[in-house]
Amino acid sequence: MTTAIFSQTIPVRFSHCDPAGIVFFPQYFVLLNGVVEDWFTEGLGINYAHLIGQRLVGLPTVSLHCDFSAPSFMGDSITFQLQVERVGKRSITLNVECLGADGPRLKLRQVLVTTSLSKHQSIDIPNDVLDALNRWHNATGAAP
Amino acid sequence: MTTAIFSQTIPVRFSHCDPAGIVFFPQYFVLLNGVVEDWFTEGLGINYAHLIGQRLVGLPTVSLHCDFSAPSFMGDSITFQLQVERVGKRSITLNVECLGADGPRLKLRQVLVTTSLSKHQSIDIPNDVLDALNRWHNATGAAP
Amino acid sequence: MTTAIFSQTIPVRFSHCDPAGIVFFPQYFVLLNGVVEDWFTEGLGINYAHLIGQRLVGLPTVSLHCDFSAPSFMGDSITFQLQVERVGKRSITLNVECLGADGPRLKLRQVLVTTSLSKHQSIDIPNDVLDALNRWHNATGAAP
Amino acid sequence: MTTAIFSQTIPVRFSHCDPAGIVFFPQYFVLLNGVVEDWFTEGLGINYAHLIGQRLVGLPTVSLHCDFSAPSFMGDSITFQLQVERVGKRSITLNVECLGADGPRLKLRQVLVTTSLSKHQSIDIPNDVLDALNRWHNATGAAP
Repeated sequence: MTTAIFSQTIPVRFSHCDPAGIVFFPQYFVLLNGVVEDWFTEGLGINYAHLIGQRLVGLPTVSLHCDFSAPSFMGDSITFQLQVERVGKRSITLNVECLGADGPRLKLRQVLVTTSLSKHQSIDIPNDVLDALNRWHNATGAAP
Repeated sequence: MTTAIFSQTIPVRFSHCDPAGIVFFPQYFVLLNGVVEDWFTEGLGINYAHLIGQRLVGLPTVSLHCDFSAPSFMGDSITFQLQVERVGKRSITLNVECLGADGPRLKLRQVLVTTSLSKHQSIDIPNDVLDALNRWHNATGAAP
Repeated sequence: MTTAIFSQTIPVRFSHCDPAGIVFFPQYFVLLNGVVEDWFTEGLGINYAHLIGQRLVGLPTVSLHCDFSAPSFMGDSITFQLQVERVGKRSITLNVECLGADGPRLKLRQVLVTTSLSKHQSIDIPNDVLDALNRWHNATGAAP
Repeated sequence: MTTAIFSQTIPVRFSHCDPAGIVFFPQYFVLLNGVVEDWFTEGLGINYAHLIGQRLVGLPTVSLHCDFSAPSFMGDSITFQLQVERVGKRSITLNVECLGADGPRLKLRQVLVTTSLSKHQSIDIPNDVLDALNRWHNATGAAP
């Protein structure tokens, strides 16, 4: 059984690349953060900027395991595909693949936790976010 | 038996932090890259900028597994401690811990490979680099 | 008389913002670089990645004058509007405005020069680029 | 009559450089921010992280005029020299030069204003900061 996939295609820009002419690996994680952001807002229907900025719910990363298979060059188009592996009481486990035109670029597993940004302590996933995550996780096939 | 440790203390700056006031996780990897850079130049005696820029030997990351235990705040001092786990024919496996004044912030394992930057293919670790890595790896105790 | 305007709307992301919750000013220039990139590729019909990466023509900034009028917050949409002020033999002068929903955010003037990336010396603007720039500069009204 | 100069030397890292092998210009402004940060904390004796994070006094840039004279390459050492041009009621005007071993790299003028980070409105420079700025501005010769 598969869950819904959130997919986003991004151009590899000059600013992402290093003196070797390929994406500097931390830039993938900056892009990943944008994908998670848009998945929340567009996929889950939970406004990410509002969640962080107004509701003061943080989503720090507690674990990141990433394997890189091929470099991405300036001018490439790369596609991130995000899937939910598991929704816990206070954590979300994601599987993300990044693909180029010619094959995979990287595969990663990221665990996010929900925190209170006023106290910097972990908190339960808020109910509306949990409902949206469960709806997403139980959906099958690609997102609209 | 322990190997030599390369240690570097870095101030957490405004530019490293996110709207939550803590280090944005990709920034740790930008800092890590600087630690590896200085370890090459100062620890191994292999000028990193020359290796990449003139000798056209790349050091892309093929694997990165990182677990975060506590956030770092603007104004903190954090210390990276780098150890070599394994030196292969074409790869270097590092274990890195990042510590704050009050305890660990993250622990990671990074695998780098040596590549030709003109061909973007993996190559054997150059002899002088291999010798320096083996000397480092077989040394015990902290670096001078 | 007006010249053509290249316009691009960009979401203000978590990664653009600082502990004050607003865009960290250097991030505007990273975004600006992406706008120039897309203007070259989509507006002028000169593939930017190919120009830099294969033809080894650099476009460093020699002058940047920027006035900021209001902060941009995470979740905002901001629109960059780029116009050509002047095309020289070896330089391009741009006027760029960045606008939020509620009014202007910044106004800047950037001078780029063409360089050889193999010699890091200034060179004349290549003919095809010059033709495209002149066509753009002499066009009136917004780009399609 | 000269005022005190705050000087900081920084290695040009892999992460600062672009596919052309030279510092990507927005990275100079990230470095500049670190220089201003250390000038506040070490030069003026006003803890920058505390000012922003606890006292909620912001220091956004309202004007930045920068002229670049030569590129900086990975492995270079560059020195920022910061001088105060003017201290206003709500603004600080800085003149900053960045020098490489072989001559100037850039020259800039930056105007910062003090704001309330809870209201995002400009405020008068707090008294202790103003006193420290005036002491600095009226000092002659290089800082210790």
